[in-house]
Amino acid sequence: MILDAPPGARTQRHLLDVEGLPRAEILRIIDLAVEMRAARAARSHRSLLEAETVGLAFYEGSTRTRVSFELAAKALGATVVDLGVAGSSVSKGESLVDTVRTLERTGVTALVLRHGAAGAPYLAARTTGMAIVNAGDGMHAHPTQALIDALTLREALGSLEGRVVAIVGDAAHSRVVRSNLHALLELGVRVRLGGPPAWVRGFDGRPGIEVAGSLNEALAGADAVMTLRVQLERAAVGGVPSLREYTRHWGLDEKRMRLAGTDAPILHPGPTNEGVEIAAELANGPRSLIGRQVENGVPIRMAVLALVAGAA
Amino acid sequence: MILDAPPGARTQRHLLDVEGLPRAEILRIIDLAVEMRAARAARSHRSLLEAETVGLAFYEGSTRTRVSFELAAKALGATVVDLGVAGSSVSKGESLVDTVRTLERTGVTALVLRHGAAGAPYLAARTTGMAIVNAGDGMHAHPTQALIDALTLREALGSLEGRVVAIVGDAAHSRVVRSNLHALLELGVRVRLGGPPAWVRGFDGRPGIEVAGSLNEALAGADAVMTLRVQLERAAVGGVPSLREYTRHWGLDEKRMRLAGTDAPILHPGPTNEGVEIAAELANGPRSLIGRQVENGVPIRMAVLALVAGAA
Amino acid sequence: MILDAPPGARTQRHLLDVEGLPRAEILRIIDLAVEMRAARAARSHRSLLEAETVGLAFYEGSTRTRVSFELAAKALGATVVDLGVAGSSVSKGESLVDTVRTLERTGVTALVLRHGAAGAPYLAARTTGMAIVNAGDGMHAHPTQALIDALTLREALGSLEGRVVAIVGDAAHSRVVRSNLHALLELGVRVRLGGPPAWVRGFDGRPGIEVAGSLNEALAGADAVMTLRVQLERAAVGGVPSLREYTRHWGLDEKRMRLAGTDAPILHPGPTNEGVEIAAELANGPRSLIGRQVENGVPIRMAVLALVAGAA
Repeated sequence: MILDAPPGARTQRHLLDVEGLPRAEILRIIDLAVEMRAARAARSHRSLLEAETVGLAFYEGSTRTRVSFELAAKALGATVVDLGVAGSSVSKGESLVDTVRTLERTGVTALVLRHGAAGAPYLAARTTGMAIVNAGDGMHAHPTQALIDALTLREALGSLEGRVVAIVGDAAHSRVVRSNLHALLELGVRVRLGGPPAWVRGFDGRPGIEVAGSLNEALAGADAVMTLRVQLERAAVGGVPSLREYTRHWGLDEKRMRLAGTDAPILHPGPTNEGVEIAAELANGPRSLIGRQVENGVPIRMAVLALVAGAA
Repeated sequence: MILDAPPGARTQRHLLDVEGLPRAEILRIIDLAVEMRAARAARSHRSLLEAETVGLAFYEGSTRTRVSFELAAKALGATVVDLGVAGSSVSKGESLVDTVRTLERTGVTALVLRHGAAGAPYLAARTTGMAIVNAGDGMHAHPTQALIDALTLREALGSLEGRVVAIVGDAAHSRVVRSNLHALLELGVRVRLGGPPAWVRGFDGRPGIEVAGSLNEALAGADAVMTLRVQLERAAVGGVPSLREYTRHWGLDEKRMRLAGTDAPILHPGPTNEGVEIAAELANGPRSLIGRQVENGVPIRMAVLALVAGAA
Repeated sequence: MILDAPPGARTQRHLLDVEGLPRAEILRIIDLAVEMRAARAARSHRSLLEAETVGLAFYEGSTRTRVSFELAAKALGATVVDLGVAGSSVSKGESLVDTVRTLERTGVTALVLRHGAAGAPYLAARTTGMAIVNAGDGMHAHPTQALIDALTLREALGSLEGRVVAIVGDAAHSRVVRSNLHALLELGVRVRLGGPPAWVRGFDGRPGIEVAGSLNEALAGADAVMTLRVQLERAAVGGVPSLREYTRHWGLDEKRMRLAGTDAPILHPGPTNEGVEIAAELANGPRSLIGRQVENGVPIRMAVLALVAGAA
């Protein structure tokens, strides 16, 4: 959700969640990302955020998301400072609130925050006048990933209104799914969730969402398919008897994808476990939009940073 | 102390300590920091250090001090390189002298050094022609913190001549106190130290310093109060029977602060242990200058970097 | 080896190895480094790579090499992003191929890669269109170090044709030696290897290389001497009975250096173990080019980055 800040606050907006973000705002961010991609290639916006200081606070390590935000901020000319907190003693010695207040007072104007605790970015946003961008909080939300996926799907399918997107995997514990559901439903997509019962629990009966009892049912006629990373360390205890069993019933390959619409693309938030939730040939084949999702990361994050800084 | 370098050396000065820094130099740094704050807001000095390369070598982790120095250097257009040594294998594989010599030869012109060993910055300064800025060495000195505190106090109180500042806590093991004492005494302040006997040992009888036997005595009529972070892991073995006991006798809150002068401000070098050495209401209340201390960090460090680089 | 990329690829070249790099290319890099050194001092090339994004992926920690590459990239105006992978979970969660593909898709155009596995940079180069610069792979190659050493030797000796260079130490397990051998032989140098039998095994009989049975034999009339860091943790099990024994037979000092040519310089890739493979007086004396090697690091890496980016 992009919140309006109190009048007079230096920064105006946060991106904490996709929930509550209306269709028009989602489309605005996506359209702006397309502009940002061109601007990056032309190096035409390298002073857009020159007055801003972007802090990166990744309490959970994530090289790919951090790098993507860092390059987005630098492409717009922001000063970037990485707290380097993952694995450090920061989480022990100092509360999130202390850290956030300190950063604001040193002149950080936008903070990109990844944290293991759901809700941490909301706490940060209530505590400061910095713009807060949620880069993933616990199992709650990962809004920029959902915006990336919406842009990627729109580029592949055109309008998303009335499209069927199948999401296969551990939806129950996935912040990516949670944010994708809000974005996709707001854009008029019909979502089918497929996976072992414990992994799709709680979604049945929600408007626009259908829970499929088998992979066949999930894929039938889908316009696009998104599969999720199996958390290898969690799988055995989390609802599936074994990885082999999961792959047999829910793993995707070229053959099974024929159940979906002709040329229906496949998405994955990465990094993939090839041979587990997705076959290598599929991940690297012509249907795959996985690389495109990564490519869309920097422009989406450029758009988000520009918006929260009030520069777009 | 800002040392003059031998003639012909590329850089001219170090900031290793406050000890030996005369009143005029302290005031010059403080005044320059006020200019730097305005210059940062106006982005008018973004090329001042464009010929300099500032290295950050924090052998002890300190997110807030490192970020403050990094933003100071970047605000002045310096190239910044972070050695990322805290927690790495650098301290094992390579001596400080080797590291310092290597950095100088790669073109680093100023090195910001935090090290667990008292005297490490002096060793570095003797070894190279780089400008060395001490960002905290063991229990010895933390000169930029003392300069920040002096600036913060001056902004709150006007002239410091003849003022009484109470410092409460573990002075004996604190590099912050050691540096503050030098700065405050040089600026004409009368200092009162309060704390359990083992924590104020050795200061009695030094000119300008008074050791108070109780919190009441320390605070009576003080113009400002500074309290220190209790090192939680060290407290039980280091002179106080328990944290609870410390808080009962030496913890500060709004009520106890009434013993000090009307509206006497409270300082703390951060991060605070709220409910231990300082009550939350006091830390976040109108008397608190804690946030202001953090804000003054970047301009003081801009001033110091500009001075040691010979650019101011 | 600098490979030509397929036509149409955005970047054109890699630096994976010195092997296969012809004399003319080695000299071209060295000459360009001399230009780059002057350009850095004059700050005249600070926009040369402004369109490039240089990624630093050091899976093995190496502060000095990383800092040297980082400053080289920044001196040319590239955007730099450090993956910070040494000691992180990246090596576990994500394959090198995944990481490399992700970086390319986020817009990284050149990747500086250090990896514990020999051949890792080749794998990276086959996987992407990014320019790959090998910053050390296992015991295989360290091409920029060899180029630094070649530049340093040429500055000290003039032409290297027909010169005798003694290399003393554990050649068998050294990527520095492996790369130096290719460069030196290509430049017409005659190499003498000295060290305990297990450390010079396998080199006997190769054209241009002579294995010396004693330090005297290795040094006799040498035009320059390079000694290697003894891996302290590996020495006892790796071919020498003890460090003391190694120092007695193969350690270099001023006196033993008299066996070499008058004023023959001494090189060492650093960091040194003073008192083990090299006496402190020698390492810090007038014959020593060790500091010069470090100084040549940034200009060589500027030259390499400019070349692989197609900007020189």
